[in-house]
Amino acid sequence: MPGHFPKGMSLAKKTAAANGRVQRVIIENVKPEVEDGGFPVKRIVGETVEVTADIFADGHDRLSAEVLYRPASQAEWVRVAMVPEVNDLWTASFPIASPEDHLYTVRAWPDAFQTWAHDLVKRRAAAQDLSLQFLIGAELVASAAGRARGRDAERLRQDAKSLKQWGDSDPDKAYRLAEDEELLVLMTRYADLQTASTYPRELSVWVDRELAHFGAWYEMFPRSCTDDPARHGTFQDCIARLEYVAGMGFDILYLPPIHPIGTIQRKGKNNSTEPAPDDVGSPWAIGSELGGHTSIHPELGTLEDFKQLLAALKRHGMELAMDIAFQCAPDHPYVKEHREWFQIRPDGSVQFAENPPKKYQDIYPLYFDNEHATELTKELTRVVLYWAEQGVRIFRVDNPHTKPFALWEYLIREVRRQYPDAIFLAEAFTRPKVMYRLAKLGFTQSYSYFAWRNSKWELTQYFTELTQTEAADFFRANLWPNTPDILNEYLQFGGRPAFMIRLCLAATLGSSYGIYGPAFELCENRPVRPGSEEYLDSEKYQIRIWELDRPDSLKDLITRVNLIRKANPALRNHRSLQFHQVDNEQIIAYSKMSEDGTNVLLMVVNLDPHYKQSGWIELPLDYFRLEEHQPYQVHDQITGERYFWQGSRNYVELDPQQIPVHIFRLYRHLKTEQDFDYFL
Amino acid sequence: MPGHFPKGMSLAKKTAAANGRVQRVIIENVKPEVEDGGFPVKRIVGETVEVTADIFADGHDRLSAEVLYRPASQAEWVRVAMVPEVNDLWTASFPIASPEDHLYTVRAWPDAFQTWAHDLVKRRAAAQDLSLQFLIGAELVASAAGRARGRDAERLRQDAKSLKQWGDSDPDKAYRLAEDEELLVLMTRYADLQTASTYPRELSVWVDRELAHFGAWYEMFPRSCTDDPARHGTFQDCIARLEYVAGMGFDILYLPPIHPIGTIQRKGKNNSTEPAPDDVGSPWAIGSELGGHTSIHPELGTLEDFKQLLAALKRHGMELAMDIAFQCAPDHPYVKEHREWFQIRPDGSVQFAENPPKKYQDIYPLYFDNEHATELTKELTRVVLYWAEQGVRIFRVDNPHTKPFALWEYLIREVRRQYPDAIFLAEAFTRPKVMYRLAKLGFTQSYSYFAWRNSKWELTQYFTELTQTEAADFFRANLWPNTPDILNEYLQFGGRPAFMIRLCLAATLGSSYGIYGPAFELCENRPVRPGSEEYLDSEKYQIRIWELDRPDSLKDLITRVNLIRKANPALRNHRSLQFHQVDNEQIIAYSKMSEDGTNVLLMVVNLDPHYKQSGWIELPLDYFRLEEHQPYQVHDQITGERYFWQGSRNYVELDPQQIPVHIFRLYRHLKTEQDFDYFL
Repeated sequence: MPGHFPKGMSLAKKTAAANGRVQRVIIENVKPEVEDGGFPVKRIVGETVEVTADIFADGHDRLSAEVLYRPASQAEWVRVAMVPEVNDLWTASFPIASPEDHLYTVRAWPDAFQTWAHDLVKRRAAAQDLSLQFLIGAELVASAAGRARGRDAERLRQDAKSLKQWGDSDPDKAYRLAEDEELLVLMTRYADLQTASTYPRELSVWVDRELAHFGAWYEMFPRSCTDDPARHGTFQDCIARLEYVAGMGFDILYLPPIHPIGTIQRKGKNNSTEPAPDDVGSPWAIGSELGGHTSIHPELGTLEDFKQLLAALKRHGMELAMDIAFQCAPDHPYVKEHREWFQIRPDGSVQFAENPPKKYQDIYPLYFDNEHATELTKELTRVVLYWAEQGVRIFRVDNPHTKPFALWEYLIREVRRQYPDAIFLAEAFTRPKVMYRLAKLGFTQSYSYFAWRNSKWELTQYFTELTQTEAADFFRANLWPNTPDILNEYLQFGGRPAFMIRLCLAATLGSSYGIYGPAFELCENRPVRPGSEEYLDSEKYQIRIWELDRPDSLKDLITRVNLIRKANPALRNHRSLQFHQVDNEQIIAYSKMSEDGTNVLLMVVNLDPHYKQSGWIELPLDYFRLEEHQPYQVHDQITGERYFWQGSRNYVELDPQQIPVHIFRLYRHLKTEQDFDYFL
Repeated sequence: MPGHFPKGMSLAKKTAAANGRVQRVIIENVKPEVEDGGFPVKRIVGETVEVTADIFADGHDRLSAEVLYRPASQAEWVRVAMVPEVNDLWTASFPIASPEDHLYTVRAWPDAFQTWAHDLVKRRAAAQDLSLQFLIGAELVASAAGRARGRDAERLRQDAKSLKQWGDSDPDKAYRLAEDEELLVLMTRYADLQTASTYPRELSVWVDRELAHFGAWYEMFPRSCTDDPARHGTFQDCIARLEYVAGMGFDILYLPPIHPIGTIQRKGKNNSTEPAPDDVGSPWAIGSELGGHTSIHPELGTLEDFKQLLAALKRHGMELAMDIAFQCAPDHPYVKEHREWFQIRPDGSVQFAENPPKKYQDIYPLYFDNEHATELTKELTRVVLYWAEQGVRIFRVDNPHTKPFALWEYLIREVRRQYPDAIFLAEAFTRPKVMYRLAKLGFTQSYSYFAWRNSKWELTQYFTELTQTEAADFFRANLWPNTPDILNEYLQFGGRPAFMIRLCLAATLGSSYGIYGPAFELCENRPVRPGSEEYLDSEKYQIRIWELDRPDSLKDLITRVNLIRKANPALRNHRSLQFHQVDNEQIIAYSKMSEDGTNVLLMVVNLDPHYKQSGWIELPLDYFRLEEHQPYQVHDQITGERYFWQGSRNYVELDPQQIPVHIFRLYRHLKTEQDFDYFL
């Protein structure tokens, strides 16, 4: 079949929409657009969406183009004129003013009036006779009058008449009318859209609240909220500790799973397969005869205690993030009641988790490769909806990449439909394309590779990708220097300075970041064995007592950094991230700027936790709107120190034994003697 | 509406295709794919299509993936296994064996058998008990047997039985069977495709004959095939000149429009608006009372003469390219018979071509912005089909970018449907995105910016874009150093060496190239006035007599270059173009290699038409499969000179007064004394 066009493009189709008339304008390469519009773009309330598109037509007519957008609850499109840039690229932006999803698309048409008006200028400059041209213009205006109503129609009818009349009697007057700005506005408002092309897809924006994009997370084990290893911490103990956590400025308290812990094949301390009778087990081995994913571990308290914790968090201006780990201990009720949700082996036993030759006999994965996947998906959705009903809105999802994408696509949509303020954090430490897919299909944010990006080159590459490519439209990284599973080499060997460095990097490179504490602020850095990223005496398997008031705790620095984050809108604008040259590979420098350009932060970090490092930093003065010959001030938000810099190259020096980081606020305008009256 | 997904993704839909089972594999970023599959990829018979895709699933299962392709006339898909590369990228390629359009898509699934077999190796290495595993394997094989037929089914049933039986009695034997290559082939052939994901689009390949991609074009004015300016050349004169043109090795003879030339507002010599009575006019001012686009200018001959020309071309191994210029002289029959196909001004006159303040009163453009566009499109399609019926298959389309894209999309598809061997060359000297759009919608090839790309940087940039980006999948450039409209500065000032240089660049950078002769081979370089790209005494407005046997004619060089093109398959493989470093900005070096790697050409061109230039060229030895320590030969295909080179850096020197170009064929294997018997 020669001439095969997959999309179909019969002449009838091409012209049908326009009453036998041809749509001449092509609109392509619309951005932002995630995977051909198959997935939404993400924004939070208050952000803007900058839309670009390649727009062109045959011939030499002037085109008009506009972005059409609307909040999903509103039927009418709002029109925003697009502006042509170089090489047929057009741009416009629209605001996200309300906390609901938005839709947008692009429309463009050959603009006969603008073409006429533009040519008229050139004809007049060449002293050509314009009388016929005014007749042509009058026809265009009269035609627009036919599409207009009320006063607009009246005005257009009058202008058409005037153009015709003055065209003969007073060409100068007619010419002035042709160039009239108000007439142009009306002619655009009532443009002939019969031949307009509309981009075939309506693209969508998922609009979230600010915490979806910008927040500081604190993870802790509730059972360790105790001063006696023999006494299991409870939700009430958590409530008592909130002052400490909220005092450091965190927004979200994230707790590992709070459900009954399996007893069959329970793991002992340090992941031992031979537990002591009093070992508490891993919270991720979910379910026992006491209940499953909608039950609460009795040692933590009751549902009522849990609700009190939610209320206490609210009083502290915080929220709870719940751990969603869809896997079962062997004694989880599902195993008896729904064997069809597990893989059954030929000998009738349930398949446990394996990564051959490793066996995880304490965990039964759920099984989606049979015809019960739909029921199972609905049940798991019910679980999340249950907790949403109890007041939870933030869900940290454990290993989502080991369950089908379709589960999450369905579940997140369902929860979000009933609870539009729900937030899902994907704990998908896996391959890049899988992480991105989970983000596209609906996860609000995701853990990232930050923990393993420690050198200047790695950090620059990775965060340039996350903020300067299309990934920024759908993937929101959450930066964790540590987690209960990850105690990286850098922290193991870098001592307290390493913790300071990684904290500041996480808090300033990431809009969202989190720490697993109190291990983090107390600089816990002993691995279970050399070469492992697992903690020694990991809280995953035992209760730990933490000495929160140790003098070397980083809690004051953390408090300061979280204050800086809240006070500086630059840190909310991840798209503004720029890295700057420093002539020392151990020093990284980067900046962020608020959308309105008034708040600029410059971070300078010594990545070497052992030695003092110094170097010359090179700043793009134009970008910062600084003058080559006028000094400016950089004000360290951590120490309060102020430096006066001038020009693009300035010296920095950072000692890890003191504080290895500058978080400078940059002040453009310093007074000089020329600012005084007597110089005017 | 929170959770809005434009594509829709109900759970039902996600699982429907698979009997309630979930499709877990994601297939995205399939290449080649032109604009979301909206347009075909282009290939010629004998080429291959290399398909890549990002393919991944949740979890850790091993996946299988395949490209499905078929010639459009064949109902059954052919399956080609894809191979995983780095970062979830999979690849496969398929051949274009028949001269018809092809379709392809991608399918992938979690491969339970391969996962099982892969894990089995690890379990065995860990000395685990495998008996249960063999039962699991036997179930998988038995299930495949149920999907197979005949001997395959028999073999699979037998293997399932053996696995089960030997699993207990002879684990080593069972293990060997599990690893058996033939079993793997059968298990893939009869894989469980119930949970397979298929890429949602079937992509298409437009398959053309070789001339669509690789050919040498020669443009000439038939009326100048005369030795007396007062005697109008005819088709019969063209026939007589074919020996000259074919002798130079050209494949296609392209003639400007052959239709009756308008008499109203006819232009005189050098575009004068005051023609002499005997002025012949511009062939692009089409139509008079003698006829329009399906008529032949009587001064050239009759339809019979035209057919004789077609036959004569065929005898010379050549084809004719006809000029399709959809515009009318004021006395074209359409103007009287179909005023609705023109724009009528308020005073009742027909709108002539304008680019204000310039007026082209001899040309009436056709008008598509009313409800008659469909009829007009059909009429213009009829014109092309008429000439196709007369035997023309190659159409050089004048200014397609000044008519609606929808016209060409319809017309080319219609013509190609009836004449699959039709070739359309777009003369769209316009903005890049418009050029690309015309290529996407169906033009076989396109004029390019080559005429204005003269420096090393410009040439490198432009041809890297055309051959190394996705443009190579849909845009085929035709390179013309000159046309009747374009006598560029470089040719005006560079003398005969400039013509040699531009000829060789066009013929070796381009798979298709053309010259406008005899102006080109006779190095005609006088512009109508300084700063203009128009020729003095342009053939567009008058008959020119050319002294074909002038001793400084480039015809021998052209003949040689066209022979080199035919003899070296490397020059047909535009995707293989690579530029190489030379430490002199006036010398450009680049290579092409045949698909099988056996034919390698290295072009070295002195871009300075005035001075001798020399430099060191740097070749990637690995890429050419050359050894650092073994000399190789470069054999100049123009001069016959041979050089022995060694290592990656070699010296070149080119004198424009002699010949400013090397076209080296590179010979890898030189005999050395070690090749003789006595060394063995």
